[in-house]
Amino acid sequence: MTRRAVVLLSGGLDSATVAAWARSDGFEVHPLTFEYGQRHRVEIDAARAVARQLGLPEPRVVRLDLGAVGGSALTDPGLDVPKDALGDGIPVTYVPARNTVFLAVALGLAEVLGAFDLFFGANAVDYSGYPDCRPAFVDAFQALANVATKAAVEGAGRFTVHAPLMTLTKAQIIQRGVALGVDYALTTSCYDPAPGGACGHCDSCLLRRRGFEDAGVPDPTRYAR
Amino acid sequence: MTRRAVVLLSGGLDSATVAAWARSDGFEVHPLTFEYGQRHRVEIDAARAVARQLGLPEPRVVRLDLGAVGGSALTDPGLDVPKDALGDGIPVTYVPARNTVFLAVALGLAEVLGAFDLFFGANAVDYSGYPDCRPAFVDAFQALANVATKAAVEGAGRFTVHAPLMTLTKAQIIQRGVALGVDYALTTSCYDPAPGGACGHCDSCLLRRRGFEDAGVPDPTRYAR
Repeated sequence: MTRRAVVLLSGGLDSATVAAWARSDGFEVHPLTFEYGQRHRVEIDAARAVARQLGLPEPRVVRLDLGAVGGSALTDPGLDVPKDALGDGIPVTYVPARNTVFLAVALGLAEVLGAFDLFFGANAVDYSGYPDCRPAFVDAFQALANVATKAAVEGAGRFTVHAPLMTLTKAQIIQRGVALGVDYALTTSCYDPAPGGACGHCDSCLLRRRGFEDAGVPDPTRYAR
Repeated sequence: MTRRAVVLLSGGLDSATVAAWARSDGFEVHPLTFEYGQRHRVEIDAARAVARQLGLPEPRVVRLDLGAVGGSALTDPGLDVPKDALGDGIPVTYVPARNTVFLAVALGLAEVLGAFDLFFGANAVDYSGYPDCRPAFVDAFQALANVATKAAVEGAGRFTVHAPLMTLTKAQIIQRGVALGVDYALTTSCYDPAPGGACGHCDSCLLRRRGFEDAGVPDPTRYAR
């Protein structure tokens, strides 16, 4: 029987690569997307387009109003997204406990589907400032999953949290994704997109642009003028 | 300085007791309530009434559509709530990964508020069938919190997850709550309430009714006829 996996699919470059990776590992991939009060609803459309291109089921979209929690430039209209400055420390675009929340919902969906594998695009290289993108976080969440669930308590299986991009550079992620057949033109990474495309100046745009350069792959991103 | 605590407040008997408990421990209590596609929106009104009675701030209400995940009689209209049968094993009213999701959001709010204490009403006696109501779950979530957050990574403090009801019987919880000034008439526990009040026959109603009897406290619950 094909093993099922729940994959966090945001519509960004990293998660598209992870979805293709899980598929190539032989999993039946179930994409999960969040509408979490982020400024950029365009992400959800990108997630749907990526799933379609990879031949995956339509992503389940879970609405979650993290705006009521606040504290991040990505969910709080009162905070500006920084431009042209890859700074030190934990950036203002960090959403408190975001990956914890997303993986928790993914865990619930996995229980319902009878899946024991969760995939997400954590990366400790480019997102070294994000506490929930480190191996220690992945290990702690996996330990939690194995005591938190009916499936684990009843002995039906053990959960594994996969973060295959953890130690890769953006260029390595892109090269791997191209080999796996990802169409990066469908993905969106910008923290502050305009109607015409990506801003080209936020942290995420800067990392993405540099990644394509370093990978020697033409950048398919549509930038706003 | 008064320490802040985020308290999961559902409007039920247990969480109302926990909120009063945290307050009596000297914490500045910040209640957090979820609108998670549950059948009983009456819970949110109860949470607001409990907060008002205890002199706490208005609960923050986070909308979260767990119906998209499914798998529980509490969020899936296709599943019936069992009546007059306190069974063995994990009941159909178990919501997959619910406490994991709720605590994850509470953790995000705690980061934003500068709080390091989370309180919730887990109980291993009456809810022995729920994997996420056990001490092992509380310990695992606390370990996760201390690697998942900016606050912990930057050394600002250590998170503590409090589950003060863990080993108490329902009668003991009620006696403690009465001593702490909780007005249980404001709380709602029923999994399947009718317009006139609680059903009196679901697991939660049966446990609650028996709790008041065993505590020797008059049951203030309004039951539907």
